[in-house]
Amino acid sequence: MNIDQLNTPCLVLNEEKLSNNIERIRNRLDEKALIFRPHMKTAKCIEVGRRMMKSPQGPIAVSTLKEAEKFAEAGVLDILYAVGIAPSKLEAVSALRSRGIDLSIVIDSVSQAEAVAARARLDRDPIPVLIEIDADGSRGGVRFDASEKVLTIARELHAGGAELRGVLTYSGATYECRDVDEIRAVAERERQAAVHSAGLLRNAGFPCPIVSVGSTPTASFSENFADITEVRAGVFAFSDLVMAGLGVCSVDDIALSVLASVIGHSHDGHRILVDAGWMAVSRDLGTASQRVDQGYGVICDLDGKIIPDLIMSAASQEHGILSLRSGSRVSLPNLPIGSMVRILPNHACATAAQHQRYHVVSSGSHVLSDVWERFSGW
Amino acid sequence: MNIDQLNTPCLVLNEEKLSNNIERIRNRLDEKALIFRPHMKTAKCIEVGRRMMKSPQGPIAVSTLKEAEKFAEAGVLDILYAVGIAPSKLEAVSALRSRGIDLSIVIDSVSQAEAVAARARLDRDPIPVLIEIDADGSRGGVRFDASEKVLTIARELHAGGAELRGVLTYSGATYECRDVDEIRAVAERERQAAVHSAGLLRNAGFPCPIVSVGSTPTASFSENFADITEVRAGVFAFSDLVMAGLGVCSVDDIALSVLASVIGHSHDGHRILVDAGWMAVSRDLGTASQRVDQGYGVICDLDGKIIPDLIMSAASQEHGILSLRSGSRVSLPNLPIGSMVRILPNHACATAAQHQRYHVVSSGSHVLSDVWERFSGW
Repeated sequence: MNIDQLNTPCLVLNEEKLSNNIERIRNRLDEKALIFRPHMKTAKCIEVGRRMMKSPQGPIAVSTLKEAEKFAEAGVLDILYAVGIAPSKLEAVSALRSRGIDLSIVIDSVSQAEAVAARARLDRDPIPVLIEIDADGSRGGVRFDASEKVLTIARELHAGGAELRGVLTYSGATYECRDVDEIRAVAERERQAAVHSAGLLRNAGFPCPIVSVGSTPTASFSENFADITEVRAGVFAFSDLVMAGLGVCSVDDIALSVLASVIGHSHDGHRILVDAGWMAVSRDLGTASQRVDQGYGVICDLDGKIIPDLIMSAASQEHGILSLRSGSRVSLPNLPIGSMVRILPNHACATAAQHQRYHVVSSGSHVLSDVWERFSGW
Repeated sequence: MNIDQLNTPCLVLNEEKLSNNIERIRNRLDEKALIFRPHMKTAKCIEVGRRMMKSPQGPIAVSTLKEAEKFAEAGVLDILYAVGIAPSKLEAVSALRSRGIDLSIVIDSVSQAEAVAARARLDRDPIPVLIEIDADGSRGGVRFDASEKVLTIARELHAGGAELRGVLTYSGATYECRDVDEIRAVAERERQAAVHSAGLLRNAGFPCPIVSVGSTPTASFSENFADITEVRAGVFAFSDLVMAGLGVCSVDDIALSVLASVIGHSHDGHRILVDAGWMAVSRDLGTASQRVDQGYGVICDLDGKIIPDLIMSAASQEHGILSLRSGSRVSLPNLPIGSMVRILPNHACATAAQHQRYHVVSSGSHVLSDVWERFSGW
């Protein structure tokens, strides 16, 4: 079957680009002797996950317990649930751990430490915990300079028989950077916050075997990983226009696209309508704050070759409107009704989440080589 | 089971508000002796759809052929697929029609008319077609003043043995309006474009039994439906903050919310973190261009009561950040870790699409009365 026989809209995944993207990050982290813990939040797919992991047993990071359950079923043993735990989710954590999964969790408050300690006592299970450290104020985590709070959390966990496994930082600020130098500066602050907190814990007599940092920009560009033990990253495998805008990859590295059919022309031929709206590409406008605003996505032909200056400039639920960038001097391509295009996404995590499967092809080929199911929900 | 026992994030649907929203629109259109064709694109759920429909057989409008298939399986016979047809989808249209479903489709080009005519000849099936008329340049449709094109499409359909069933307009511009008077003005232009095109076709000897307009703002406020036969609307059933911002409903009418758990506090207690990020509420920021920017959504307590000035101001994939509106004089509520909140969505279509089911409750009750599955994909 060829991809031009697929029902549109749907996802097309270029396996060659996927493999290259994975190899690039993996080689980089191997050279630096770091453990790589790929994040499954983007792909949510066993086949993609297996290509990202070093071993079928992991390690991996996940953003939902649904991901943890699915990858556990597929044989993964070392799973970090990298979102601060809600106490009500501890029962599901226990259930997975009782099946032999080394599921670790993240906390950043004394209140969570108390809940985890209570659960550890109840289950007589040393639930492994990483303390999240906030390096840049972007999201969660204990402020890196709130030493007393970090130590109180550690003491509470220890008293309850939970395992303090380490510290974790996430630098959302890397996504706001304008160039590689800025990314490196932010990543260095992230590293320092993590290493400082690990030192604090160790000096107080607590073990802190894992010092985990991550995000695709950090994993791609940070030069200094001194005293870091592991790196997390997820979106790198598919890559997207936001990553290309940050300089993390080139637009040509993007492995994921949305296949769409032309269904109309309007505005005296200045607009092309396709059957992929925001339901198919998501509402993510992540490049709007970057140097080049790509609208809802960059348009390629069926071979995956970029059509000059053509972007999805507007979207409703099931309609995408393609037009030339303002100021473009090229003319609109001839795309009659029924033609197919491929749309490169702003944000692969958001776009992939709108679909149920990946249609796998190789570069330059229209032949469908495989179909990989993905899962969603919580 | 009570909703505070649900795994978060998840959707909570207030059945009483749902029923009231449906009754309000239905009564309005009944009074005006219009056929109501509710749109299933928001709910994508048989149980909600049945409440929206006048009869278990329909009529309904759908935004995907997947919706058509699911509602056909549930016994609906009169289905309008209200997105311009891609020629490659005609085979699926034929398959549904051969099962006895009165599935009608929409076109706005001679090229589509040719494809439909060819299919009608091949199947010996008078595929019913509505010509989409563009009243405001917002999306698809033949320009209302392009009379010759409308007639060429009609002749092509007729020659192939397809059934010209009518004309259809959609006024996306109603979503950009700032008040009810503007909505009425836009809706009147929409009406005129549809009625003008119907007259054109009838004068040329073509039948045009259906003259269809729609959108929730049009259905809610238009005063003049002269010569219109049917009205389409979808989001009204749940309602959302965009509709409230337009004045179509009050915030208190919104039937859909995302249930979330508090997982942290940051910025010296000025921010509350919940386990519902953009994956759970969608990336839709539809109120950003309205008078009141609601961020990613308005926060209510577990009873559904609005917490003054608290909105979701930022989101990453699985983290929502709650904070007070800038300039607020109230203080942040006490929401310890593990507390639950309900988030009212900007755009119900986008938020619902991120989930697999609705958890049904009544106003003022925490008791889960039902769980309704929804579907997605194409």
